[in-house]
Amino acid sequence: MHLTDATWTDVRDFDTDLALLPVGSTEQHGPHAPLGTDFLAAEAVAEAGAEASDHDVAVAPTIPVGVAEEHRQFPGTLWVSEETFRSYVRETVGSLASHGFDRIVVVNGHGGNVDALREVCGTIVRHDDAYAVPFTWFEAVGEHATRMGHGGPLETSLLRHVAPERVREDRMKEATEGAAERWGEWVASVNLAYDSAEFAENGVVGDPSDGDAALGEELLDAAAAALARVLDAVDERDVSRPERRT
Amino acid sequence: MHLTDATWTDVRDFDTDLALLPVGSTEQHGPHAPLGTDFLAAEAVAEAGAEASDHDVAVAPTIPVGVAEEHRQFPGTLWVSEETFRSYVRETVGSLASHGFDRIVVVNGHGGNVDALREVCGTIVRHDDAYAVPFTWFEAVGEHATRMGHGGPLETSLLRHVAPERVREDRMKEATEGAAERWGEWVASVNLAYDSAEFAENGVVGDPSDGDAALGEELLDAAAAALARVLDAVDERDVSRPERRT
Amino acid sequence: MHLTDATWTDVRDFDTDLALLPVGSTEQHGPHAPLGTDFLAAEAVAEAGAEASDHDVAVAPTIPVGVAEEHRQFPGTLWVSEETFRSYVRETVGSLASHGFDRIVVVNGHGGNVDALREVCGTIVRHDDAYAVPFTWFEAVGEHATRMGHGGPLETSLLRHVAPERVREDRMKEATEGAAERWGEWVASVNLAYDSAEFAENGVVGDPSDGDAALGEELLDAAAAALARVLDAVDERDVSRPERRT
Amino acid sequence: MHLTDATWTDVRDFDTDLALLPVGSTEQHGPHAPLGTDFLAAEAVAEAGAEASDHDVAVAPTIPVGVAEEHRQFPGTLWVSEETFRSYVRETVGSLASHGFDRIVVVNGHGGNVDALREVCGTIVRHDDAYAVPFTWFEAVGEHATRMGHGGPLETSLLRHVAPERVREDRMKEATEGAAERWGEWVASVNLAYDSAEFAENGVVGDPSDGDAALGEELLDAAAAALARVLDAVDERDVSRPERRT
Amino acid sequence: MHLTDATWTDVRDFDTDLALLPVGSTEQHGPHAPLGTDFLAAEAVAEAGAEASDHDVAVAPTIPVGVAEEHRQFPGTLWVSEETFRSYVRETVGSLASHGFDRIVVVNGHGGNVDALREVCGTIVRHDDAYAVPFTWFEAVGEHATRMGHGGPLETSLLRHVAPERVREDRMKEATEGAAERWGEWVASVNLAYDSAEFAENGVVGDPSDGDAALGEELLDAAAAALARVLDAVDERDVSRPERRT
Amino acid sequence: MHLTDATWTDVRDFDTDLALLPVGSTEQHGPHAPLGTDFLAAEAVAEAGAEASDHDVAVAPTIPVGVAEEHRQFPGTLWVSEETFRSYVRETVGSLASHGFDRIVVVNGHGGNVDALREVCGTIVRHDDAYAVPFTWFEAVGEHATRMGHGGPLETSLLRHVAPERVREDRMKEATEGAAERWGEWVASVNLAYDSAEFAENGVVGDPSDGDAALGEELLDAAAAALARVLDAVDERDVSRPERRT
Repeated sequence: MHLTDATWTDVRDFDTDLALLPVGSTEQHGPHAPLGTDFLAAEAVAEAGAEASDHDVAVAPTIPVGVAEEHRQFPGTLWVSEETFRSYVRETVGSLASHGFDRIVVVNGHGGNVDALREVCGTIVRHDDAYAVPFTWFEAVGEHATRMGHGGPLETSLLRHVAPERVREDRMKEATEGAAERWGEWVASVNLAYDSAEFAENGVVGDPSDGDAALGEELLDAAAAALARVLDAVDERDVSRPERRT
Repeated sequence: MHLTDATWTDVRDFDTDLALLPVGSTEQHGPHAPLGTDFLAAEAVAEAGAEASDHDVAVAPTIPVGVAEEHRQFPGTLWVSEETFRSYVRETVGSLASHGFDRIVVVNGHGGNVDALREVCGTIVRHDDAYAVPFTWFEAVGEHATRMGHGGPLETSLLRHVAPERVREDRMKEATEGAAERWGEWVASVNLAYDSAEFAENGVVGDPSDGDAALGEELLDAAAAALARVLDAVDERDVSRPERRT
Repeated sequence: MHLTDATWTDVRDFDTDLALLPVGSTEQHGPHAPLGTDFLAAEAVAEAGAEASDHDVAVAPTIPVGVAEEHRQFPGTLWVSEETFRSYVRETVGSLASHGFDRIVVVNGHGGNVDALREVCGTIVRHDDAYAVPFTWFEAVGEHATRMGHGGPLETSLLRHVAPERVREDRMKEATEGAAERWGEWVASVNLAYDSAEFAENGVVGDPSDGDAALGEELLDAAAAALARVLDAVDERDVSRPERRT
Repeated sequence: MHLTDATWTDVRDFDTDLALLPVGSTEQHGPHAPLGTDFLAAEAVAEAGAEASDHDVAVAPTIPVGVAEEHRQFPGTLWVSEETFRSYVRETVGSLASHGFDRIVVVNGHGGNVDALREVCGTIVRHDDAYAVPFTWFEAVGEHATRMGHGGPLETSLLRHVAPERVREDRMKEATEGAAERWGEWVASVNLAYDSAEFAENGVVGDPSDGDAALGEELLDAAAAALARVLDAVDERDVSRPERRT
Repeated sequence: MHLTDATWTDVRDFDTDLALLPVGSTEQHGPHAPLGTDFLAAEAVAEAGAEASDHDVAVAPTIPVGVAEEHRQFPGTLWVSEETFRSYVRETVGSLASHGFDRIVVVNGHGGNVDALREVCGTIVRHDDAYAVPFTWFEAVGEHATRMGHGGPLETSLLRHVAPERVREDRMKEATEGAAERWGEWVASVNLAYDSAEFAENGVVGDPSDGDAALGEELLDAAAAALARVLDAVDERDVSRPERRT
Repeated sequence: MHLTDATWTDVRDFDTDLALLPVGSTEQHGPHAPLGTDFLAAEAVAEAGAEASDHDVAVAPTIPVGVAEEHRQFPGTLWVSEETFRSYVRETVGSLASHGFDRIVVVNGHGGNVDALREVCGTIVRHDDAYAVPFTWFEAVGEHATRMGHGGPLETSLLRHVAPERVREDRMKEATEGAAERWGEWVASVNLAYDSAEFAENGVVGDPSDGDAALGEELLDAAAAALARVLDAVDERDVSRPERRT
C-alpha cells in the first residue's frame, strides 16, 4: 500500500506493522544521469521490495533531499544538514509508528545518507516507540557492491532499467572520460577529501558505460530480494532491548 | 526545468534565478481523497505555474511531509514538528540559492504549513542569501478561496481534474454526510480546537461533492495564472532590505 | 488576582485553574504612539477581561518583548526570535500549570505574535500538561477588526481611553499623512514585503485620527466581553485529546 | 528615556549608546512580600540609577520571568529554563544594540539570575556587537550586602520604601518565625540543597522585620549611586577585546 | 575504583552508589605552570578524596576541556561553550547513574566551570535520575581560599606537591613580576572585564612564589578531607525533592 | 609537545600548525580488558605517531567519553550522545585552530566514534577555520584490520604491549569462551542489532588470546607509521575548498 494513494480509512483497514520509508537525494550524478537518480532508485527498490515480500507493507512517500553537501560544488545539488535530515527522518518514522507501523525499513538510495540513517535509527530503537533499520540498496547486491562508484556502472544500469529516458546516452563518452576511478583521496586508510569536486572532475566515479539495462534488472531483483529478506527478519525479530548485564 | 530530471551540466547551462519549491503534506483528506492530496496539488500547481510563466524557472522536488500533527488521530497522517519542517525548507532553499536560484517561490498545498512557511521565508529573506515567498494555491483562486474546507469542494475538484483515479467517487456520500461545515470550534474569534478530530467526524470539512473536474481545471488555471504573476513580481522586485530609519 | 502583587500564600489559597498571560511587544507604532502600545493594550484587556469574567482568574505579569523583527528598521523596536519567544511562553505557561493554573488564555496585543502563539499553544495542548489558547484582542472586536492597521484607528483609540497621556496628539497630522493604507505589498494573495519599512513610511498603517477615546472604551469593553466568553468556554471545555480514529 | 513610553521618532532623536535592561523574577518571597518583589526592585533601581546618572540612558521594559525553578514548590512562582532566559536576554540586548544602544547594563533584582546573566553577557561581549554587564542591586549596597537573605531585611525594607502597600505587615510575625537563617545547606563549602523548600519553611531567609522604609531608601540610594558609577565606567571603557598574546 | 582501570565485570561486582567525576580545564596558568594545571589538581583531589573516604567510590575519567574562553588570548588554552560543557557533563553523569552510581560529586579544578556545574547539577537533580553536586577544591581549603588567584600561590603550591616537575621554577621571577593582584576590574561590585588578558599581563593572578610543596600537601589534605565529608553527606542525604507547599 | 604539560609561553614559541587530538571511550571491553582500553590506545598511538613524525606536532589531552551507548547494558560504560560528542570535538578543535593549530588529526581509538568524527570533521572543514581529519588506529594496520572485533586480538595485544598490567590474563579463558565471532546480526547486508548485548554474551568479539605483546608492538608501530604518513599528507595538502563547477 502506498500511503500517498491511500485514504485514512484504507490505512485504518490495513493490518500490518511493517512500513518502508524510501529516502533519496537530489544531487549531481555526472553529465549523463539526473540529479534525481538516488530518489528514483530508492523508490524503485522500495516498490520492488514490497512486491517481492510476502508481507503486507505500507510504503511512505520518498524523502527527496538528503545529506549531499559533499557535492555542493556541482550545480543543482540540494542538501540539508545531517542534523536536520535526522530530525526529519526521526519524526516521520515517529508518525508512522503512531499508527501502528512500528517496524520500519528505511530504503536508502544514497551513500551520503548512510551514517546519518544508522545514527537516527539507533536513536529511534533505543529511545522512541519503534524499530527502524536502514537498508541501502547498493550494499545488498552481492559482489556487484564493490563496483558502486558514483553515477557509475551500478546506478547507471539501474536507471537504464527503470527510467531509461532519464539517461543521456549521448553524453556517455564525456561521462566516462571525466570519471574518477575511486571515491576519495586516501592516505593510510584516511580519506583526505571531503568534497567530491576534490577528486571527481565531472562528478562521476566508476565507468557508467560498464553495464546495461539487463544488469539494471538484475540489480533491482537482487535488491528487492534482499529487502524482502530484511522484511522477513524485521517482522520476526524480538526488538525489545536487552536487560542490563548483572 | 525539473531539477530531478536534469543533470548538473543542464543546471549549469540554465540561466535564471527563479525556482519553485513545491511543499505538500501526507495527511488524511477524508474517506474519499488520498493522503497525498496536498502533495499532488502542490506539484500540479507548480508545474502549471512554471508553464504559465514567461520566465525560465527551476522546479525542485516536492517535500512530502509537513506540518500535519493536527490530523494525527487519523491513520496514515504523517508529520514533522514545525521546527524541523522550517529547518528542512530553509536549508533546501539555501542549497538552491548556492547555485544562483536565489528568488524562490515555495508552492504550498497545505493550510497547516502556512504559518511555518511565512516564518521561515522571513528568516531566509532577513538572514540568508536568498529571497523566498510562500504561495498557497487555494488562497490564490479568487472568490473560490472562501470554500476551501478540508478534503472539500476545492481539493476534491482539483483532484478530479489532475488525478481522477485517486478520488473514491463511490465513497462520496459517506464523505459528504460525515463532513463538518467549518474548520474549528470558535468562541469570540478564538478557535478552541487543535486537532481536526475534535470537530470533523470523518476528517472532511465542506462538501466534496460540490464541484467537478471542470471546476478543478478552473482552479488549476487560476492558481497557475496567479503563480505566474507572483513569479513576475518576484523577478522584478528589489529584494534588498530597507535602510534603518534615521 | 495579579500574581505579581500576591504572595505565595495568597496563591495557595486561591482556588482556580484559570489564568491569563498578557503578551505585548515593544515596537514602533508611528510618531504618535509609544513603543509600549501593545504591552499597554494586552495588559488593559487582560485586566478588563478578568473583571468582566464571573470566574476567579490569575493574571500573570506581561511579557514585554515579542516577535517584532518586522519593525527592526524603526529605532527602539525590540524583538526576540520566534523560537525564543515560543520557549519563553511555553515555559512560563508550564510553571503556571505546575501550580494548578492549567487552563490559560494568552492575551495578546500584537499581530506579529499571532502565529507563534498559535504554534506554541498547540504544542502545549498536545505535549504538555496544560490547555492554552491565544486571544488577540483586536480580532475580537467584531466589525472593527477590519480597520486594525498598525498604530491606526483601533490602537490609537484604545490608548486614548486607557493611557491618553501617552498619545502625542500634536503629531497626529504627521502620523496620518505618512500612514500607509494597508499592511504589506500584495500580488495574487501573496505579501511580498517582510519589513514594515518596505511599505509604511512612518510606520503607521491606517488613519490614527479616525477614532477617539469613546471608541477606545467601546473596543476595550468589546474585547473584555469577548475574553470573558472565552474564559467561560475554556473553563467548561473538555480539553482531553481525541482518541485515534479506529 | 523609558522605551515603552517613547515613540520611535523620540528614540531616533535620542543620542546615547547607554541602556539599562531591568530583569526581575516572579517568585515567592515569603508570606509577607509579593511574588513581584524582584521585578519591583529591578525597576526601581533602574529608574533611580538612570536619574542619578549624568548620562542620557535608555531604559528598556522589565523582563518579568527569570531563573526561579529553585522556588518551584511555592505556589505562584514562575520560571523559565536558564537557556531560554539567556536567549531572551541576549536577543533583547541584540535588538537594543541594533539601534545604537550598544553599551548595556542589565539591572538585576534576583540572585537566581546572576550566573545566567554573567554567562550571557560574556557571550554578548565576545561574540555579538555589544558590550553588556550585569548589575545586581543587592551586591552593590556595601556592607548591607551580607544581610541579603531572601524576602529578608533588605528586600522587605526596599519594598517598604518603594511600594509599602505591597508588604503584608500583618504577617510579619509569621514571616519572621518561619524564616531560615541562611540560604542553603552547606557541608565543606558545598551547598547540598537545590530547592529553597529544602531549607526554608515559609520561603524566607533572614529576618524581614529587621529594617524599615528608611533603610529601604538608603539601599535604593546606594544602589542608584553604584549604578551611576557603573554607567560612568561603561561609558568610558575601551570595550574592544584584547589581542592574542604573541 | 578507577573506572578506566576496571573491567565491566569489576564494576558489576562493586557495590556503591557513590562516584566522583573529576573535571579540569586546559588553559594558561602563567609562564611557570602547565596548561593542564586544573586537570592535574582535579584528578589529584579526587584520588586523595576517594582514599580519605570510608566509602567505596567509583572514580570516572577526568574531563579535560572546560569553560575557559576567558583565557582564549593566551596560546594553548582550549575551551568549549558552556552549553556543550553542560551537555557533556550531564550525559556522562547520566551514564554513571544508569549503572547505579547515582550520587555523584563532580570534583572541579577550575573557577570558570563553577557556574556551569552548579546549573547542570541542578538540572540533573531536578529532572534526571541522579543526585549530583559540584565540589571545587580551592573553595574547600578554609582560609586559604581567599588567596586563590590564578596560577597563584595555591595552585602553584599544589603542583609543587603533586607534580613538581611540571613547575618551571626558573621562570618564577617572571611569573611573579607580571602577575596581577586581583581577578577582574571592578566598579561598584561589577567586574567589567571578561577576558583575563584585560587585566593579567602574563595570565597570573596572585604571587606564585608565595607557597611551597608543604603548603601544597596541606591544601591537598584539606581538600581531600573536605571531599570525604561531602561524600559522607551525599551518602546519607535524602535526595528526594520536596513536596509542593500546600 | 603535550599541551597539558606546556605553558602558554611554550605554546607561543612552538611553531607548527599540526595538532593531534586523541579521542577514546570508556566502555566495556570484556571481562579481561579495562573500560579505558580505547583511551589508552588513542593516547599511545598519538604519542607514538607524534614521535614517528618528522614534524613538530602539538598533542592535545585525550577526550575520555565518546559514543558508546551501544554498550550501555554493560556496567561502567560511559557515553554521551553523538550530537554532544560532535559539539565537544568541534569546539575543542576550534580552540586549537584559534592558536594556529589549524591542521588537526583526530586520533581515534573507538569504532563507535567513527561516523560522528567523519561528520564533525566535514563540518569543520567546510564551515570553520580549520582542516581536520579522523584517524582510527585499527583501520590503519594493514591486513590486521580485518581481525579487529571488540576487546579481541588487536586491542588486547596492543594493551599487552603498552599497559600489560591492565590485562586480566587470568580471565582469558572466560573472555575467549564467551566471545562472539562477529560484530552484529546481519541479514542481507543489514545489521539488525543496535546494542552489543544483543549478540555478545560477555561483550567480547573475536578471540583475545590470539595475539601477544609482540603483535601489540607491531600494531603500534604500524599505526604510528601510518599516522606519520597522514601528518605528512595533512601538512602538504591544499586544504582550500574547490570552486563551484561552472
